[in-house]
Parts: sequence; structure tokens; C-alpha cells
Amino acid sequence: MPEDPVMAYAKAHEERHLAELFDLLRIPSVSAQPAKHGKDIERAAEFLADAMRDAGLENVRLVPTGGNPIVYGDWLHAPGAPTILCYGHYDVQPPEPLELWDSPPFEPTIRDGKIYARGATDDKGQMFTHIKAVQGVLATAGALPVNVKFLIEGEEEVGSENLERFIRANLDLLACDVVAISDSSMFDERHPAITYSLRGLVYYQIDVQGPKRDLHSGTFGGGIKNPIEALVEILDGMKDNKTGKITIPGFYDDVDITPAERKALAKLPFKERAYAKELGVPMVWGEKGWTTLERVSLRPTFEINGIWGGYQGPGAKTVLPAEAHAKVSMRLNPGQDPRKIAKLFERAVKERAHPGVKVTVTNLSGGWGAKAPLEHPAMRAGSRAIKQGFGKEPLFTAEGGSIPVVAMFQQVLGVPSVLLAYGLHDENLHAPNEHFDIGNFHKGIRTNAAFLYALAEEDLTQAKGAKGKARARKAPAKNATKRAAPAREAKAKAPAARGKKARR
Amino acid sequence: MPEDPVMAYAKAHEERHLAELFDLLRIPSVSAQPAKHGKDIERAAEFLADAMRDAGLENVRLVPTGGNPIVYGDWLHAPGAPTILCYGHYDVQPPEPLELWDSPPFEPTIRDGKIYARGATDDKGQMFTHIKAVQGVLATAGALPVNVKFLIEGEEEVGSENLERFIRANLDLLACDVVAISDSSMFDERHPAITYSLRGLVYYQIDVQGPKRDLHSGTFGGGIKNPIEALVEILDGMKDNKTGKITIPGFYDDVDITPAERKALAKLPFKERAYAKELGVPMVWGEKGWTTLERVSLRPTFEINGIWGGYQGPGAKTVLPAEAHAKVSMRLNPGQDPRKIAKLFERAVKERAHPGVKVTVTNLSGGWGAKAPLEHPAMRAGSRAIKQGFGKEPLFTAEGGSIPVVAMFQQVLGVPSVLLAYGLHDENLHAPNEHFDIGNFHKGIRTNAAFLYALAEEDLTQAKGAKGKARARKAPAKNATKRAAPAREAKAKAPAARGKKARR
Repeated sequence: MPEDPVMAYAKAHEERHLAELFDLLRIPSVSAQPAKHGKDIERAAEFLADAMRDAGLENVRLVPTGGNPIVYGDWLHAPGAPTILCYGHYDVQPPEPLELWDSPPFEPTIRDGKIYARGATDDKGQMFTHIKAVQGVLATAGALPVNVKFLIEGEEEVGSENLERFIRANLDLLACDVVAISDSSMFDERHPAITYSLRGLVYYQIDVQGPKRDLHSGTFGGGIKNPIEALVEILDGMKDNKTGKITIPGFYDDVDITPAERKALAKLPFKERAYAKELGVPMVWGEKGWTTLERVSLRPTFEINGIWGGYQGPGAKTVLPAEAHAKVSMRLNPGQDPRKIAKLFERAVKERAHPGVKVTVTNLSGGWGAKAPLEHPAMRAGSRAIKQGFGKEPLFTAEGGSIPVVAMFQQVLGVPSVLLAYGLHDENLHAPNEHFDIGNFHKGIRTNAAFLYALAEEDLTQAKGAKGKARARKAPAKNATKRAAPAREAKAKAPAARGKKARR
Repeated sequence: MPEDPVMAYAKAHEERHLAELFDLLRIPSVSAQPAKHGKDIERAAEFLADAMRDAGLENVRLVPTGGNPIVYGDWLHAPGAPTILCYGHYDVQPPEPLELWDSPPFEPTIRDGKIYARGATDDKGQMFTHIKAVQGVLATAGALPVNVKFLIEGEEEVGSENLERFIRANLDLLACDVVAISDSSMFDERHPAITYSLRGLVYYQIDVQGPKRDLHSGTFGGGIKNPIEALVEILDGMKDNKTGKITIPGFYDDVDITPAERKALAKLPFKERAYAKELGVPMVWGEKGWTTLERVSLRPTFEINGIWGGYQGPGAKTVLPAEAHAKVSMRLNPGQDPRKIAKLFERAVKERAHPGVKVTVTNLSGGWGAKAPLEHPAMRAGSRAIKQGFGKEPLFTAEGGSIPVVAMFQQVLGVPSVLLAYGLHDENLHAPNEHFDIGNFHKGIRTNAAFLYALAEEDLTQAKGAKGKARARKAPAKNATKRAAPAREAKAKAPAARGKKARR
């Protein structure tokens, strides 16, 4: 690659890049709160379309979906060269609880070399590095060494409801050799990384209805089942409190962790005590028999994400409440089928539901995990690009979070994703005071530019041929328990049945 | 008693009585929300003082306390006749959740012969009947047949924090032969009642602190203890889910229920299926081995009054929250010492607290239950008064709710309380759409007037002599487990240590 001019351009425009990112971060595009932020979602999409056009991308447009628009753009003037699809998302998590932010979530603020704002690292800041990289290469070299397509969605934080339909309906538009995604974390601030494994997700709301109105807990206490108590029973029953094992029958059946993976994880520089200290907890804790790194990256989990019911104000209100609610989610090993886990979970809730209340479960989100083929030439290209951008070889890491679209690209487009990670684990994504390291933002732009040139040097045709036309394969996995490369298998439908309601 | 003129006066002034009650109900005197409603508390107290003066009471004044003022007034021109102390409270429960009210909580509205407003039945409406009764008798007869004192407090719904200190400091001012309280419920709309037994209360908040900030449940899930999960474990451990028994060691030791009480309860007209239907639940449920009536009136309970933590909004937020909280309360049999139960509870929480989180408990409220002496002449007088006011003999009922002041009057002033019940169990006290039956409001006024005359006809001196100067007894109960009449014993300090914090 023509290193000097591109890198020089990136360096020379750092201030402008930052200013533009700030403009994007100011738009509160919270996808989980459509009534409040529907207009902001539109504004963010329009902003990105303008930024893409400004970068020199062509055919830029907002594609309407059943939900939030997808932003598409491309540059296809490198015949014979590979095609890379850059994926990202412009929607962000809700900012609540607002009172815990040190600066307002949608007024980006720099402190100690970090950009504080909702979406700074997840994913506006990371995603934006790809647009700026293309702009830099086009501005200096006049052309890209590969073909590039952009697909930026606005529903990632609410389960990418409409993305799969869009991809399936636009196989030719989106045809490519590899996907690039920056929506994950470096191992730590001194170790850049490519994420090779992601967990899947199943997310539910549990609603418990007790009496038809709030009751006086003195007058009625002892007479009927308290809905919060019924909810607590359901939740407490999901895990063995001693071993930390999830008790849902069959839950672990398809977990697929190789001795080699465990060995690789054990080699990573991880200090348990420093980890606990940084999080402010007395100790780490989790499933017996697995290390902390294994538990947060490869092992499946069951977490209670939220709970509410009855009186939450100051003082003592003696109420026996009418309702109780919880949000729960399970992170899945790439071997686990979210549809199967959803069924097992619903059955377990039903079995634990007290007959004195009405229990309803609603599937809010779900998706497969993924494991990338480490031997793929695009992974080699990613590794070389990181070395150029960060001055260091990347570690290959397993991420505990979920990017269901990675499995979707594998299953529907038949291509792997290279997860160029520019975030850090402690950047408070999904929490107050989310932030993004300015240095990593700029290094990310340079890495992405280098990645385009590195890809052009690899022969991706062979890799592609090896996988065949995966996009045409639609049969569900038949022997999911024993497959070696879970992310490579074709599945009929990635996300678990969403929005389905099962009563009690 | 001169029945005709007093009753005629009460009937003739029904409209005015109602209008005055409405004015009182319009004042949002929510004691649990002092920042928002401190001024309203003052306004309600002033309103009552004016109403007392208007009724002909003397020495009317607002007594400042460490918290909300106490309203005092008296009429002491019946030398040689008994003295009755009328107790009530002008503070009300928080109105939340507001969206569940069919009419605004502080705009009293009549529907189907019922007054809808926060405080209508608990306790403004019931308490007001005593002021109006005194007014009626004074207006028609020119004098009362007994001496009367009024003590109306403004902190009943937050644990009567300052009441005991006030009573102890004003033994002469409050000296009396009997206390009259209307702050409980008739057996049902066709059965007027005198409440002879009340449950005690211990109310706690549990706070669980996990990581120092909200975390991404994908990145960190599985690594540390989830504070909601830790809270759920603590709560679920408090009860045996199969038998409904509270598992706190020693919890049931001092429960005192006689075969005669069970027999009396069994005779009351109670239909389990209609009860469940009225509450809108599939079935009644509770501690095995006891009837529903026993469980809601005599047996102690453990209820979760509120719970919150993590994300409560729409959609799926994948957060591993920093904190989780719950409000819990235990209703106590009159034999149980709230201080002892508080200690047992704190120890049980400590034992169940996961070492991966920090658990704090805060005692928010507490008080003894009480059992009234059925053979007391004042109880006979109450019975005759109810017959005059309602045209029916009262049932003697055990109430599941708590009026800790009843034990306090017994212990500090050495006198029993006659609980003339004018509310109904389904009047939504402590819940949205609280209401009060207009007919019972007017019958209550007439009953109270009759009670003054009935008391004058009883010889209370003998009853008082039998109890001795209970106010002077300050030794704590030594053999609390075996006493036959728990409400009669002297205890050093009625309420459980309040506001005390115990860590983990």
C-alpha cells in the first residue's frame, strides 16, 4: 500500500475526523425507545449517508425496512479484486440511568484522551473509522485497491429485526468475499485484537401477574401468592447457587469448547485480582470448573438484566403488588442454537411458574454466536493491517458479547467476518459514561486503510470456493452437537423466534 | 343517650360532613414523600385543628415533633366520667402508580356510593367520623357524657417515628381510660366489626451493590456475581416454596394462637373461591396447615413489597447492573417481638448474602401487634354503640394489618383500644382507587356518638384498677413466648430499632 500518503492524510485530518464523529454522537439514536427517538434514528441515518457521499462512496441511499432504515453505499471500480462489505450500526443503547453520567450522554466530551458519549465505542465511533479510511484512501490514491460496500443498520441494539430479511432479499447487492466489522474490544489497551469467537444471545422478558390490583400487604399478606415472590422463585431456580451452573435441562448439550481454545485463553495476560478491583467487586465469581476468561467469553451464561415490581420509592409502603417483571438473557456458546435454548428456557419457566399467578414470557432478541476460521486469508490480511495500524501483532480473542449478524453473514452470504476490534472492555458500553479512546479511533482509521491493501494482496477466491455457495444452503443443522466449526454451518433462520409469546 | 336529637343532627348534616371530608381529602398529605408534600402535611394538620375547634373542642393545637406535627384537642367538662382518647392519622400512603387511578387521587369523586380518593378510608375518612360525632353531640346536647381527647398524628404511614416520644413526654396530657380508633375494616359490607387483634410489623430495605458501574452483560456476564441474582437468592431463601413456611430460624417461636381463636375464625362467613375471584387470582395460596383467614389475620407473613434493579424500559438492554434493591416486610403475630424478629431477619440476610456483592439492610419501620381484652367494659360499650349505629351486633375480628400505636397505648398509657372498624377490606387502601363507603362514613359518625354515651354507662374504674399503673411499668417482657395476653404486657420499647443499618 502507498503507506505514506494515506497515513499522512489520516494524521493530517484527525481533528476533522473527531469533529465529524462528535456531530454523529450528538444524535440520540436510541433504537429501544422509538416513540422518543424515532426522529433521531432518521437523522443519524441521514448523517451517515451524507458522510458516505462525502467520503466518495457511490449509490448511497437509505433503505426503508419494517423498522429503522439501513444505510447502503459502495465503490465498485476494482474489477477482479476482492469485495469487502463493511458492517456497522448507528443505533445506540438507552442512556438511562442518566444521573450516573458525568457529562450528558449526547454531548460528547473529551476527558483524559477519551470521548465520552453514548455510542462512542458501541458502535458509532468504531463504525465511523471505516468510512474515514475509505475517504482517506480515495483522497490520496484516487482509487481503492478493492471493491467496498457499506451496510450500516439501525436496529443492532434491539435484535436486528429487519436485517436478515434485507440481506436475503439483496444477495446480489451484498455479494462479497469478506465482511469487516469493528464492534468489539481489544484484549486490553496494550494488546490489539481480532475477535475470532462471539457468543450468541437469547433475551426474554418475564411478566408475572398476581392480583388484579395492588393490595395492602397487612390485610392480604399471607392469603395469596405474591407476584414478586413468584418471579424470584422462577429466577432463583435457573441457576445452582453453589456451582453457578444453569439448571435448565439440556442447556449445556451443544456447548462446543476445544482443549486448544482453553489452552489459548490460558496463555492470555489476564489478572483476576486486578479485574475484580477494576470492576469494584470483592471477588470474581461464576460457573465452577472454568476460568474467569473462559466464563466471560466461551461459556454460556444466564443473567438477570433488570427486575421491577411493587414500591420503589423512599420509605416503607406496605403493598402486596399486582405485578412483577424481569428481563433476562442467556449468552450462548457458538455451538448452541438460540431457537433450541429459547424452547428449553420457556419450558423451564413454565415448570417453575407458581399456579397462584399468571406468567408470560416474551422473546425480545436472539441470535447465533459465531466462530471465525482462523486460517482464512482475510484473517491474515486483518492481522497484517492491525500490525500496520497499531504497530503490534493482534491477539485472537473470544468475545463474550454477541454480534448475531456475523452468523447471519456466514449463513446467508457464505462469507466470514474479520472483527477488527478498536474498543476496550472497560469503555462502559451499555452503561453510563460510555467512552472511546481517541488514539484507538485514529489507529482504527489507519488499520482499516491498511486492511484494504492487505486484502488486495490475498487470494480470496480459493477461500471462497472452499465454502461453496453457502448462501444457497438453507437446511437446518442436523448434527449441531458435534460440529467442529459451528459458525460455518448453515442454519435455516438465525434468530430465535422473536416476539413470540408463550403464556405461563 | 338522647338518641333522637343526636341522630337527627347527624342525618341532617350528612351533606356538610361529606363536603368537609372532601376538603381534607384534597390535601395530598403523603408522609413518605416529605420533599414533595411537606407543605401539604402542614396544611392537613391545620385543616384538622380548624375542624376540631369548629366541633367545639378546646385546647386545640399543633404540636411540633421531630417530623410531622401532632394535632391535639380536648373537651374535659365531665368530672367523674371516663376519659376517651380518640386516635387517628391525617397522613396518607403515596398515590403511585398514578396511571392506575380512574380519577385523580386527590380529587375526591363519588361513584356508586363510594368516595374515591387517597386517604378516603385510610384514615382521613374514618378518623373524621370521631370529630363529627363530638360536634353532633355538643351541638344537640350542649355537653359530652364523657371527657374526650383527640390525638391525630401525621406519620402513621411511615412508622409513627415521633409518636412514642410524644406520648411518653405527655403522660398526664394523654391520661385516659380507653382509646378509640377507627382505622381498620369491617368483616365485610354486611358485617360490622370491632377488631380485637392486630399484627405487628417489621419492614426492611435490602440494598445489593455489585460492580461499581453497570456492565455489558455480554462482555462481563459469567465473570462476577450479578447483584440482582444475589438479591433473588436472599429473597427466595426466606421461604420454603413448597410449604410457604418462613425459613428464618426461630421466626415462629413466639407465635401465640389459641384453639379458641381458630375456632372463632372458622365460624366467620368466609368464601375462599369468592375471595380469590374478587382479587383476580387463580387460587389462594399460603402457609400450609392454616386457613386463608388465619393466614391473613393471625399468622405471621413475609412479603416482598417492592423490587428494582437494572433495565426496566422497553426492549432488550443487555446490562449486568451495578445494584439491586428490595423492600420486604414481615407481619407479626401479637406474640412476636419486632426487635427479636428484626435481629433474626438481619442474621438470615447476612447468612444468605453472596460474598461477591455487598449487602446492606435498613430497618424502615416496625411495631408490635396487639390483642385486645374482649372482656373489657369498653369493648362492651363499643359493641352496643355499633349495634346502635349499624343496627347489628359487631363481629370481633383479627386484622392482618398493623396499628403499632395500639400496642404503644397499652404499654405506655396502660389502656386498651377499642377499634371501631368502618372501612372495608376491598377499599384499596395502599393501592390505586382507594375508596370509602359513604353509608359507613355516616354510620360511623352515629356509632361514635353512641359510643360516648355507652362508655358513660360502663364502670371503667374497675377495669383500670385491674391493670394498675401500666404506664409506670417499663421492664421488658421476660417470658414473651408463653404469655396469654401479649398486648397487655409492658415492653421497654415497642418499635424495632429503626433506621439502624447493618452491613452485609
